[in-house]
Formats: sequence, structure tokens, C-alpha cells
Amino acid sequence: MKINFPLLDGMIEFDKTLILAIEDTETFSDLARLLYSYNESSPLKLALDDFSPLKESQLMLVSDILGYNVNTPAILKLVYADLERQFGEKEEVKARLELLAVEIANIISSECLENELDLEYDEITLLELIKAMGVKIETTMSSVYEKCYEIVQIFKYLSKKKLLVFLNVGAYLTEKQIRSLLEYIELCNLNVIFLEPSKLYDLPQYILDSDYYLEYLNSSSES
Amino acid sequence: MKINFPLLDGMIEFDKTLILAIEDTETFSDLARLLYSYNESSPLKLALDDFSPLKESQLMLVSDILGYNVNTPAILKLVYADLERQFGEKEEVKARLELLAVEIANIISSECLENELDLEYDEITLLELIKAMGVKIETTMSSVYEKCYEIVQIFKYLSKKKLLVFLNVGAYLTEKQIRSLLEYIELCNLNVIFLEPSKLYDLPQYILDSDYYLEYLNSSSES
Amino acid sequence: MKINFPLLDGMIEFDKTLILAIEDTETFSDLARLLYSYNESSPLKLALDDFSPLKESQLMLVSDILGYNVNTPAILKLVYADLERQFGEKEEVKARLELLAVEIANIISSECLENELDLEYDEITLLELIKAMGVKIETTMSSVYEKCYEIVQIFKYLSKKKLLVFLNVGAYLTEKQIRSLLEYIELCNLNVIFLEPSKLYDLPQYILDSDYYLEYLNSSSES
Amino acid sequence: MKINFPLLDGMIEFDKTLILAIEDTETFSDLARLLYSYNESSPLKLALDDFSPLKESQLMLVSDILGYNVNTPAILKLVYADLERQFGEKEEVKARLELLAVEIANIISSECLENELDLEYDEITLLELIKAMGVKIETTMSSVYEKCYEIVQIFKYLSKKKLLVFLNVGAYLTEKQIRSLLEYIELCNLNVIFLEPSKLYDLPQYILDSDYYLEYLNSSSES
Repeated sequence: MKINFPLLDGMIEFDKTLILAIEDTETFSDLARLLYSYNESSPLKLALDDFSPLKESQLMLVSDILGYNVNTPAILKLVYADLERQFGEKEEVKARLELLAVEIANIISSECLENELDLEYDEITLLELIKAMGVKIETTMSSVYEKCYEIVQIFKYLSKKKLLVFLNVGAYLTEKQIRSLLEYIELCNLNVIFLEPSKLYDLPQYILDSDYYLEYLNSSSES
Repeated sequence: MKINFPLLDGMIEFDKTLILAIEDTETFSDLARLLYSYNESSPLKLALDDFSPLKESQLMLVSDILGYNVNTPAILKLVYADLERQFGEKEEVKARLELLAVEIANIISSECLENELDLEYDEITLLELIKAMGVKIETTMSSVYEKCYEIVQIFKYLSKKKLLVFLNVGAYLTEKQIRSLLEYIELCNLNVIFLEPSKLYDLPQYILDSDYYLEYLNSSSES
Repeated sequence: MKINFPLLDGMIEFDKTLILAIEDTETFSDLARLLYSYNESSPLKLALDDFSPLKESQLMLVSDILGYNVNTPAILKLVYADLERQFGEKEEVKARLELLAVEIANIISSECLENELDLEYDEITLLELIKAMGVKIETTMSSVYEKCYEIVQIFKYLSKKKLLVFLNVGAYLTEKQIRSLLEYIELCNLNVIFLEPSKLYDLPQYILDSDYYLEYLNSSSES
Repeated sequence: MKINFPLLDGMIEFDKTLILAIEDTETFSDLARLLYSYNESSPLKLALDDFSPLKESQLMLVSDILGYNVNTPAILKLVYADLERQFGEKEEVKARLELLAVEIANIISSECLENELDLEYDEITLLELIKAMGVKIETTMSSVYEKCYEIVQIFKYLSKKKLLVFLNVGAYLTEKQIRSLLEYIELCNLNVIFLEPSKLYDLPQYILDSDYYLEYLNSSSES
């Protein structure tokens, strides 16, 4: 991935993860706004490895880590599909489930016939059972760290999204937590930027200081 | 029940069913409109046996027998509750159903645990199974008669409704079908009016002729 | 227009208006249901003059004259467009209206500037003024006849609709009112069927009697 | 206002504004989550000057300064009411506006009468004109600072809200901007907390350091 914006002398290239700390408050604030309203004609340039510009729809921006809703209809649909895929890979379990569903359908249809009204009904599908279970992503987060982890996992699901940006979340995470997140992101081969208003621990990162001088900090403690 | 309106010399009282044929077109048309916009201050007076006026919310008017939607959310809720009541009366069947639901929940929850995301879920209730079956009142009506029958059955469910009025449906029903409907209504102890624009077969009915003369026709063939 | 269905020996052709009285109750009832669920593969055949079958979307069926909602969003959009067209034909009136709208916008924008919040606003369009007036089709119908008249006028607006069918409305209309409606329909060059369960006054009409014998009644009183 | 939570030795009292910097990342993160899910039984205690606990509905939390939607229906209703109040205080302007609205209504009603359909309409009210203008709060923010300012102004409007909390917004604001915001808040006599993950410039503030030692920093530069 590549990122560029007017104050940089040249684009920053990165592989999978990038921590970018902007120490000048107004520049950080402006960049945050550019991210929030990103599109292909923005002065903020985001591009894929092949230099093709990142489309607006390919960016997933998390500006509100606490309020970010993970259980949107679109994401739940993907979760359901994933569970269905899991069952598809276990023939015996799936067969057992279908047998149980048929028996339930038989019992309920018998009662429908006994009802005074002429009732109609269809079958019970696997998807309907998953929905009846109220399956959703756990939201009673025990920590902001877990929420971040969850969002990365969801980002992995969303095949149309190519870049995830966490905005100003460093304040909520310990150094150890961020290291662990970075590791997981690289393992999953995803593209994620952490945009921060100040140096983020002793991690490898780009820092744009208040004199607009860009420096790469290759943390020695990383090894 | 009692019904009165300006052109009548006195109120008509009836027990359970009333066929009222209004032979003057404009009077029939006016009465239909009054029914459609009925409320307690209408010139059309409808009252319960104890002379208390029928409330707007207690009237169920069927002016469009073909288009009448029986599967409203309110009615489906009653249907579901009725099925739940049926199961409540059959302990063994209910226990079997619950056992099956628990086994299904166990299988699905196992898969949820295997999923990469932290998923949460609840139980599968009887109501959710009924909904998953897509239970609803059959609407592929084989005849208008069946639709009328169905509407009477639904009216029975709707405990807040005290009077059902079928407007101009005689044209769709044979004499035998109406006799059968009347019988069913009386058996169920319901209050139903058929408002018609002309004499409805040789059934016992009130006829307001074009000279505004009201006559009660006590069909001899009824016995 | 042409109409055909299994019990007829051959299709009925008509120019603009057709009154069709089906005296056998079950046949009338069946035909009503076929109309209600009409599509191109129905046993009920409706065709344009060039023999091309009438599409489902080209049929406008009024089965509930009392409950028929004339102020749907689609129809209101046409009404607004029609008013805009009227103004388009009167340059001076339109100019005056626009002048008034600009003066109002100036006054309101001045107040917006005085407000503590930074407010933004746009112009007031003619369409917005029409909507602000709450323009809609009068629904406090003084009679079913007026409602029928109104529905014919709306049918005229709906350029995609090719055939209007009034189902069982004869009971609400006097002979004079129906004659007047027929006259208006023919004047407007529209295609309208009245489907009735019994002979409709002494008007020119097709009658399918209870022996399934089709007869054309060319009323002498018409001349 | 008063604030307390398990790690503090005693409650912090403040008059109008409070900057609270929590230097331990996990504590900051936990406190942010407590704020996000605040209610009266939370371990995080918020109380009015008379010691009555702050109700959930009285708290306005801004955790996403970039994404915060100012033009909600509830807020727009208040904006409209405020503009109406402004007009109420200027009799002549209001009279002129009403005169213009009446003239517009007369022109449109004339066209309605000329339309083929029977159209009905009502008057054009001041509120309808304001809505037709599309009045709303400007959202093309030129800076995060302006957005904060706007949110404080809106908070002033929302009479049911008693405490506004800005979470982690310091990173977007210069020292001068925060001083200006604090001044405006105190002028308006509002209660606002800035919860920050690190010392916020040289401003008067409470700092809970990583050893859970609470210190009040009374900036000398303030005078």
C-alpha cells in the first residue's frame, strides 16, 4: 500500500501494517478529516501496490472504536454464511441437524393441521435455525483491545474492503496489545494503518514531527 | 346488537346475524360510506345489547373481500399464541419439541465456538421455531366463500372486535354458502351483519325498499 | 380491447367501455378472483386491440371502491408534476411565484445568519411550495359516484395503465350516474370494464346468464 | 458537578469545565468504556451539584468527533423552533413573511382549482417554509475545532442534557483552540468534561498518573 498527502515530500510505502504519528495537531486534525471524507479525488492519496487508487468503498475507517457497531445486517449475513459453510464441511453434523429440523417441522405441522384456521407453512432451513439462535458477534466487550481484535477479524471477512484505518486508538491500547494486534494483522496478510497524534510507544513507525520532518523509527526492541 | 340510521323508523335489533338489504341505491351507497367512516358520533348508530354504543375500534368492516389481508402482524401474533397454547396442552409433544430444540442449539453453539469470531447466541424458543416454519393463514383461497369463512374465524380470535360487517359480498356467495356461514356464525356466538344492495336469496332478512318501507322477511324455507 | 375466459364461446371485443354481468354466482366469484390475481398466463385473457396480451402492470383493478386510496405517493407525484406543468404554461404567474419565493428565502436566510448556530439552507422550489401547501386529491368524498369519477380521472393520469376494471360497484351507483361515467370515459377515450353480478339497469351490456348463455343487450332507451 | 470511580481516593468536584488526563492506558480505556455504557448503577459515578446522580439520559458523550451527526431530527426540531422564536420577536418581519405566504397560497390554490382533479390543500406555515428552505446545521466543517464549537452550541440547546463529555478529542485541538472552547463553555455556564489519555498542554487539569496518584495542575500560564 501507498499513502501520500500534501505535506509529505514523497509517498510512504508499507507492507501490511503502518503506524503513522503526526505530531502537529492541526495536521493530524486535517488528515483525520481527509480520511473521514476520503474519495479518489481527495488530496489524501491512498493506493494499492499496483498504484491503482483505493476506492472510497474499499476503505474501512474506525474513528469511533467504542461506538463501532459490529453487528450490522451486512456483517451478520457474512457470519451466517460462514457458519453455513462450516456445516457444509461436516456432512454428518449437517445431516443430523437436518433430521432434527424435519422432525420439528413434522410436529409443528401436525399442530397446524389441528388448528381451526387453514394454516400454511414451509420448511425450517439451517439459516432460519441460526437466526432463531440469535447468533451475533459478542459485543459485551471486556476491553477496547478485544474490540480492535474483533474489528480486524471482521475486516478479514469483508472481501471488498482493502484497507483498514484505526484513527486515534493508540490511547486505549498498551504496547503489548498493539504488538499483538500487529502480529495478528501480518499473519492474516491484511493492510492496516494506525493514525496517531503522537509517537506510539517504541514501535517501528513513521513520525511526522511538528517541523514536518518525516522520520522512520525502526524500533530496536522489536527483534 | 342494535342498528339505526336516519331513514329507519326505529332501530333494528338482532341476535348474532343480520342480513340487511337496502334497495335504494343512494341509500345503500350512503350507508356504506357511513360504515366506512364509522365512529360513535356517526348518524349511523350501532350499539351493543346493553345499549352502549359500539366503539370505532370494535367494528371490523370487510368492504374488500378479495383484497382483505388476513396475515397482518397483529393476527399472526394471535395465531402463534394459539399454536403455543395448543402445545401447552400436550405436555409430551412439547417436551419432545424442546428436547429437539436443545439438541439443535447444542450443535449450532459448537460450530459458533469453532468460528474465528467470538459469537454469542441464545436459545431457540418454540415461538422462534413456529416463525422459522413461516406459519401463516393460507391465502391461496380456492373460493371467496373460504375467504369469508376464514375472516369469520379470525374475527373470533380478535377479542376486541364486537361486530363484523360484510359489505356487498352476497354477489360472490351462493345461497347454500351463505346459509352455511350463518350457521357457523351462530354456532360461534358472533355478531355479524351482511349489508346488501338487494334481496339476498330467500333468507330471513330485513329489506328497506325503495320507498323506505322496512319489512322483515322470515323465510319459510328456513325451517 | 378483448376479453375471454373458459366459459365464453368466443372472446368479447369492446371499444372503450364494457358492462359485463355474470349472473351465475360461482362464475362471477371465480372471475373476480381471476381478475384479482391476473397475469398473462391466467385463464382469464385480456388483450389490447392489436391482440397483444395485457400485462399485469397495465391493469388497474378497483375491487374496493370505498377503501381505494387515491393519494398514493406515485399519484401525488403525478399531481405535483401536473401543477408544475400548469405553471410552466403561465409565464407571468410563475415569475410572480418565483419572486415571492426569493423574497421569503431572503427573509429566512437573514434570520439563519442571526442564529447562534452556523446554519445552511438552499432555495425554495415551486415543488416545495406545492408540498408545503399539502396539495392532495380530495378524499372527503360526498358520494361513491364522485369517488368513481375521481378514480377514472386518476386512471387517465397513469399512462402505464391500459385497462381499468370496476368490480361490483354497480350497487352503489344510480343508472344516471353510470350513464354519466360511461359518457366521461368515452370522451376521454379510456378502456373501462364494469364487472357486475347481475343485469345493470337498462344499459347496453353483455349478460352471461346462469345457463352460460351470452347475450348482448342493446338498450333501446339509450338513444 | 462531581465525578468518582474506583481508582480515585475521593470524588473530583468541578465548576463548569474539567480536564481529566488518565495516564495509565488500561485505566483510560476502562473509564472510556464505563462512560460509553454509563447508567446510574455504574461504578463510574457522576452527580449534579446537589449530589443527585446524573441520569443516563442527561449525559451527552462525544466519542466520535468526526462522525458525530449534528443534524438529527431531534436537533433540527429545536433549530426550527428557535428560528420560529426569532421571528416571533420581530413582528414586522413575521407579518411580511405571512403576507408573502398568503399570496403564494392564493396563486397555488387558483391553479389547484383549474386542475381537472378535485384537489384540496391547506395553508403554508412558517415552519413549512423553513423546512422547504432545507435549513440545517452546516456540516462541511472546516475544522474539528469548529465541529467541537458546534457541538457545545447544540448541547446548550438540549435542555435535558446536563453534562457533555468529549472523549479523546485533545489530539485534534491546539492549546489555543481548547482555551477558546473552555472560555465559551464557561461563558455559557455549561458542564463539560474533557477526558484525555495524557496531559493536555499547560492547561489547568487533573492528572491521574500511572501510579494512580491524582494531582491538580493549576497552570501558571493561565493568568
